[in-house]
Amino acid sequence: MKIIVCGGDGFCGWPISLHLSARGHEVVIVDTLVRRAADRELGVDSLTPIRALDERLAAWRAVSGWSIPWHAIDLAHAYDDLLALLVRERPDAVVHLAEQRAAPYSMKSPRHKRYTVDNNVNATHNLLCAVVESGIDSHVVHIGTMGVYGYGSGGGTMIPEGYLAVEVPTADGQGRIEREILHPTDPGSIYHMTKCLDQQLFYYYNKNDKLRVTDLHQGVVWGTNTAETRLDDRLINRFDYDGDYGTVLNRFLMQAAVGHPLTVHGSGGQTRAFIHIQDTVRCLSLALENPPQRGERVRILNQMTETHRVIDLARMVSAMTGADIQHLDNPRNEASRNELPAVARSLISLGLEPTHLQEGLLEEVIGVARAYAHRCDKSRIPCTSKWTTS
Amino acid sequence: MKIIVCGGDGFCGWPISLHLSARGHEVVIVDTLVRRAADRELGVDSLTPIRALDERLAAWRAVSGWSIPWHAIDLAHAYDDLLALLVRERPDAVVHLAEQRAAPYSMKSPRHKRYTVDNNVNATHNLLCAVVESGIDSHVVHIGTMGVYGYGSGGGTMIPEGYLAVEVPTADGQGRIEREILHPTDPGSIYHMTKCLDQQLFYYYNKNDKLRVTDLHQGVVWGTNTAETRLDDRLINRFDYDGDYGTVLNRFLMQAAVGHPLTVHGSGGQTRAFIHIQDTVRCLSLALENPPQRGERVRILNQMTETHRVIDLARMVSAMTGADIQHLDNPRNEASRNELPAVARSLISLGLEPTHLQEGLLEEVIGVARAYAHRCDKSRIPCTSKWTTS
Repeated sequence: MKIIVCGGDGFCGWPISLHLSARGHEVVIVDTLVRRAADRELGVDSLTPIRALDERLAAWRAVSGWSIPWHAIDLAHAYDDLLALLVRERPDAVVHLAEQRAAPYSMKSPRHKRYTVDNNVNATHNLLCAVVESGIDSHVVHIGTMGVYGYGSGGGTMIPEGYLAVEVPTADGQGRIEREILHPTDPGSIYHMTKCLDQQLFYYYNKNDKLRVTDLHQGVVWGTNTAETRLDDRLINRFDYDGDYGTVLNRFLMQAAVGHPLTVHGSGGQTRAFIHIQDTVRCLSLALENPPQRGERVRILNQMTETHRVIDLARMVSAMTGADIQHLDNPRNEASRNELPAVARSLISLGLEPTHLQEGLLEEVIGVARAYAHRCDKSRIPCTSKWTTS
Repeated sequence: MKIIVCGGDGFCGWPISLHLSARGHEVVIVDTLVRRAADRELGVDSLTPIRALDERLAAWRAVSGWSIPWHAIDLAHAYDDLLALLVRERPDAVVHLAEQRAAPYSMKSPRHKRYTVDNNVNATHNLLCAVVESGIDSHVVHIGTMGVYGYGSGGGTMIPEGYLAVEVPTADGQGRIEREILHPTDPGSIYHMTKCLDQQLFYYYNKNDKLRVTDLHQGVVWGTNTAETRLDDRLINRFDYDGDYGTVLNRFLMQAAVGHPLTVHGSGGQTRAFIHIQDTVRCLSLALENPPQRGERVRILNQMTETHRVIDLARMVSAMTGADIQHLDNPRNEASRNELPAVARSLISLGLEPTHLQEGLLEEVIGVARAYAHRCDKSRIPCTSKWTTS
């Protein structure tokens, strides 16, 4: 297959691109390197010394023999270039990761809120519009988030994969009718909200133009390297540890490695879904190699392998490493405690063999963090974005 | 009250601004005149000779004694100016009509799709973001559309005002739990989709920042003048008859006036909700004068007074005027026949006395159209936007 990966320089995009290339697919990366610009804006850098994209791609060519061309096209603001690329390349699929992906970053200031909405909505819409205009039947695969469903109390129901069977009253109020609807969303940040907007865009283009779309609602990713990024130092993946882009489990493992207390926001009673980066890349190849048929509704899959409470993860890392746990005020506007019961069977039925939290993999992450501990700026660990001004 | 009307030069915005001013409110208009630019792009003009906004406002000052200042701020792209205006004016309410409002225009080309998404989403988001940043507890009142619910078959259920009570299965699959959810949406065009996205933006800002929001899901507006626009020729309201911006009943009445057959798309079995422009302005004052409390969820009201099948309207106008009915291919991607059972009690409970279709008012519209028939360019009557390329 020929696959364009938009956002192919990012934390998920880079190992996905290499994995697809290793499987023999013809991969083309589209990326403006804006994620690296955000690092410079925030005064941080990946804990791991990621190389310039050109250098990464040269290393991959040396290691694997495969070439991955790269185009610096801004999906949100360079529609004509995007369209020309699609018409020229005629990809079988487009992986869409060209979105601002951090909730805290999206809440830093009005400028960050507005950037996240403008970038994410226009990037998604331009891509869908361009696929239709190009006349190519490309399968669009997007990574969303389990967070679209909100982190409310849970309340005794199960989060399905996209579609919810409900009963609604009849017009006369006497009976009830069964309906299958897109699962209602309840986003907790501007970032999460944009993923809810994406869902509406996919629904519309699938209905009106028969676009083939797979939307993967992903859990919190942990780990850093995959089979491909381990092949050469120059292929190393990004490791975010700062308060904006760092994700919770990786932050705990890094904090343990550098001798920082594990920072738990509020009680730590928040339940989140998790997935290892190795499973992320595997899920993408499964989704791409099993595309929906033309005319099929948007395929929505929950891309996660387990759920944990934040405090339980902190205790586990603390028990492994002896690190202290530090409870801080929660800057987010969310329930202090929630359940997150969810169905995640589809990717397993396609062949995913889930990687669960296990000491070996956790220790590998700690090992990576220790190796690059000298690159850590501890002043960038705290989360400074606040969800509300009041 | 001090009220900023964004989009105050438009078909609804102009008579709303005058009505609020006549009721003693302090009105400020924000408008870039982009609707007039769209007319120039399309090579059409309002059937009625609307005056330049400065001239309109001078006439209103002469007729009523009230001044309405006007600022040409682009909500979608001039955030700093918008914020400065809010901080300076400290409005009690902001009426948000600064959106591209025609479904056929939104479907004309990729450029029109992209403009509609970029403009409408960023305008709404910038406004919400600016109200939060300003720290002012302004009530945001938006006009949405009944079209967010889609024009499917109807299927025996009733469209409520915003929120739908459903039953969902419990996690163990054994029981059912009641939930109240935002009514699922099913947009039929890019324009309608942006109104669904707006709904998500309102939901989020109301939840996270306690913004007070009223979203008025309006039917198809008919009529042209209101009590205030009738006061002076220079206050006359816009009358759109072209295939992009003209709405169905006004188009039939204009077609009858100029001796053109009544153009029915497909069978005419499509059911739509309707409201007279005089009721639109009344609904806005009712919504503004009865604002939600801080902490109250988004108030969603169905702003419509009756529903009709398109073919029934054509037959009625034909019977009144002798005009022929002409069936054309439907350029839209929609059901050929649908029901539209909907609840619309809230605005009546606030004091709306609905204006129903009646010969007198229909004849008034025909009279206006006859008076300006010499301004009609019949070549602009056909709908040329197609919903799909296939």
